[in-house]
Amino acid sequence: MAVSTIFIANRGEIAVRVIRAARELGLHTVQAVSAADGDMLAARLADAVAPVGPAHATKSYLNKEAVVRAALESGCDAVHPGYGFLSENADFAQMVEEAGLVFIGPRPETIRQMGDKARARQEAQAAGVPTVPGTEGVVADLDTAKAEAARIGYPVMIKAAAGGGGRGIRVARHEAELATLFPQASGEARAAFGDGGLYLERFIGRARHIEVQVLGDGKRAVHLFERECSLQRRRQKVWEEAPAACLTSEQRVALCDSAVRLAERVGYRGAGTLEYLFDDETGEFFFIEMNTRIQVEHPVTEMVTGIDLVRTMISIAMGEPLPLAQGDIALKGHAIEARICAEDPAADFRPAPGTVTGLALPGGFGVRFDTLLYAGYTVPPFYDSLLGKLIAHDESRAAAITRLDRALGELVVEGLPTTAPLHRALAADPAVRAGRVHTRWLEEWLAAAPLAVPLAAPASPAPTPA
Amino acid sequence: MAVSTIFIANRGEIAVRVIRAARELGLHTVQAVSAADGDMLAARLADAVAPVGPAHATKSYLNKEAVVRAALESGCDAVHPGYGFLSENADFAQMVEEAGLVFIGPRPETIRQMGDKARARQEAQAAGVPTVPGTEGVVADLDTAKAEAARIGYPVMIKAAAGGGGRGIRVARHEAELATLFPQASGEARAAFGDGGLYLERFIGRARHIEVQVLGDGKRAVHLFERECSLQRRRQKVWEEAPAACLTSEQRVALCDSAVRLAERVGYRGAGTLEYLFDDETGEFFFIEMNTRIQVEHPVTEMVTGIDLVRTMISIAMGEPLPLAQGDIALKGHAIEARICAEDPAADFRPAPGTVTGLALPGGFGVRFDTLLYAGYTVPPFYDSLLGKLIAHDESRAAAITRLDRALGELVVEGLPTTAPLHRALAADPAVRAGRVHTRWLEEWLAAAPLAVPLAAPASPAPTPA
Repeated sequence: MAVSTIFIANRGEIAVRVIRAARELGLHTVQAVSAADGDMLAARLADAVAPVGPAHATKSYLNKEAVVRAALESGCDAVHPGYGFLSENADFAQMVEEAGLVFIGPRPETIRQMGDKARARQEAQAAGVPTVPGTEGVVADLDTAKAEAARIGYPVMIKAAAGGGGRGIRVARHEAELATLFPQASGEARAAFGDGGLYLERFIGRARHIEVQVLGDGKRAVHLFERECSLQRRRQKVWEEAPAACLTSEQRVALCDSAVRLAERVGYRGAGTLEYLFDDETGEFFFIEMNTRIQVEHPVTEMVTGIDLVRTMISIAMGEPLPLAQGDIALKGHAIEARICAEDPAADFRPAPGTVTGLALPGGFGVRFDTLLYAGYTVPPFYDSLLGKLIAHDESRAAAITRLDRALGELVVEGLPTTAPLHRALAADPAVRAGRVHTRWLEEWLAAAPLAVPLAAPASPAPTPA
Repeated sequence: MAVSTIFIANRGEIAVRVIRAARELGLHTVQAVSAADGDMLAARLADAVAPVGPAHATKSYLNKEAVVRAALESGCDAVHPGYGFLSENADFAQMVEEAGLVFIGPRPETIRQMGDKARARQEAQAAGVPTVPGTEGVVADLDTAKAEAARIGYPVMIKAAAGGGGRGIRVARHEAELATLFPQASGEARAAFGDGGLYLERFIGRARHIEVQVLGDGKRAVHLFERECSLQRRRQKVWEEAPAACLTSEQRVALCDSAVRLAERVGYRGAGTLEYLFDDETGEFFFIEMNTRIQVEHPVTEMVTGIDLVRTMISIAMGEPLPLAQGDIALKGHAIEARICAEDPAADFRPAPGTVTGLALPGGFGVRFDTLLYAGYTVPPFYDSLLGKLIAHDESRAAAITRLDRALGELVVEGLPTTAPLHRALAADPAVRAGRVHTRWLEEWLAAAPLAVPLAAPASPAPTPA
């Protein structure tokens, strides 16, 4: 398991993140690059680059054979999949291992097991982790669906067993709606995932999204407390925090312990996240799914625990035992991450790739900006719109919000619009400041009062003489 | 004591630092600008700017009357002096207070008391803080000096009572040398400071420089542990750490408690630093002087304690009590600061101002870069050469050094040479890694093997295809 060179099978800011961790561990890196990505920041920072195919992701970053071949040909002995792309593809993880390379993540069987939402739910129940009331596994047909929905209680959510990331989810408020949506969803799931299997779950409309970060070495697991990611738009997280301000200490213990039970039950290896819905009126939480990879929002956990998640997942993949006992892990302060995307908040968040003609990065105590930006970089139109993650850490949640806003005020990206103005508006909002949000809050808020913001942030204004 | 707008009576990176803290406290800022500084980063970030005079510091940032007038005319109600310039000038602090403004620092009387090295030493002794064997106060004449030096033991250091920052210090190895140097030093002190008073101290050649950060509210004081700043060149600190790796827990407690005793004895208000020499062979420490201001290297303390020193000194100046009990303050991990200066390490550190034609800033977990740089900025030749402070925080000293080196590798400043290559060489040096250094180590190391580094850092190289 001796590793000397890691192949970065991803792009953007997470590729930069992994390169930094690898370098701090004394490891070399080879960066996968599509034809569109030769000049990205990760390609500049890596020790070497290796082409993996054309710009379109299905032909490069999603092409399992091309990625494994590039890793082997460039002399790597390990592969880090980042998030998205092939990171939760069990077949890819298996190909990597069969090629004699170390996969920096869970065993392929774990990815397969937790990637099947019905199996994941069964494992959770077996580990004594509460799950959303719903069907046990895939529903055979519409008649069964009707009977199950009556048992679960409307509204029910129809989910594709093979889906993920919110794709293929529908909500039926009554039986007639179920009768219409169920066959539609099945057909779409078959078309999208090659598998028409569906299951049903109680729809919890005003829940909060809370997730628990775990680390395991296959034998033992620990949690690194939770994150709250309730501010979402189109099921994409926009603003993430650690810890979740809405939990009592008792709720935190129960939630985090449940995550460790499930992680240990499946012999989890590496960094993973268990996602839950939390009903802050009843204090109930329900496991919904596990992400068997590093997450976009992992930095907030790093800031409040002081533990480097990416370094730790690499050292575990190299065969080292989990370096932490649960008692070593403590929370300090509060951290918030604002996802800064190349999208135009004044035009319904239309993706807006382009060239960065001017750039000023925020800084100072408690501020971290994990970004792919540099002055002169042209954001290509082929991939997701994330430009960077601005993280503020401070003594309290209120102070972290204020620090985030201070840092947002220093960020200047000229040449393309970004979602920074959305985050400044959120930081100023009384409901956000009071923590009174849920997973549909942001969409309702945007619908009620569309943001009036300029297309692009203005150049830093000259201060007025006093 | 209600404060709404702070006048920043300084420039460069510390002005940026104070603006950030003020903004996080909900306060406005007016930035002092000399004729050479209209386009500096702090002027861009402040809410407003106010001219204080021509480029030459004696006519602007050191001009007490001009600074106080600008603060009043721009509607400020408080003044932050930063470090250097007027920050330890008791007359200035008094003028600020007499003008009805809040001085963000100690009482003028404390600055005066601790600025007089002989009085500071007497206060230390009265507080039971060990001092370097030396004269009690100013030495009347050469005959007295000879008798005192014989008592103290050679080599002795001749210091100007009114001096500071290493200026006017000479070392006499025997009586004949004392006879030559004493009159010279007296004449120079009179010329430089208007006061020819001298005192003598045992010269401890291989000591380590250790200093304790304190915070006080005039009634009560706490320490925030120590920093080690032994890597110096021409008595200027180059690389600073927290905590000091050479101290045992018992030594740390004794040292830090002694600092609190002295701070409480003088009723210290604000952020201050007590500097000590530490003999790691005997475990003895000796108080040498107190700096009654925020220090350049304060960020390493912020990183290991999580406490914002600049915000805290502002809130104390606004009349709030010290918000911390000693038991609230704990060390977490290790932090190192590398001072990045516009100097050419390949040309005996000749100052090298110029225009920044390209810039890439380091980032990621545990990395902070407090800098005055932006792309296109022209570093003026009139002030000190500090461009920024690159701080790395990690779980251990070894990890912090590795992280610092990783971050140094990401820093690209095009258009002028910087001292970054010196820091990369230090990070790789076995003696630095082992912590076997003293205050003359760096000069000896540079003399033994001058750095062979390029005049300017190369543009980020294109990675080689693997």
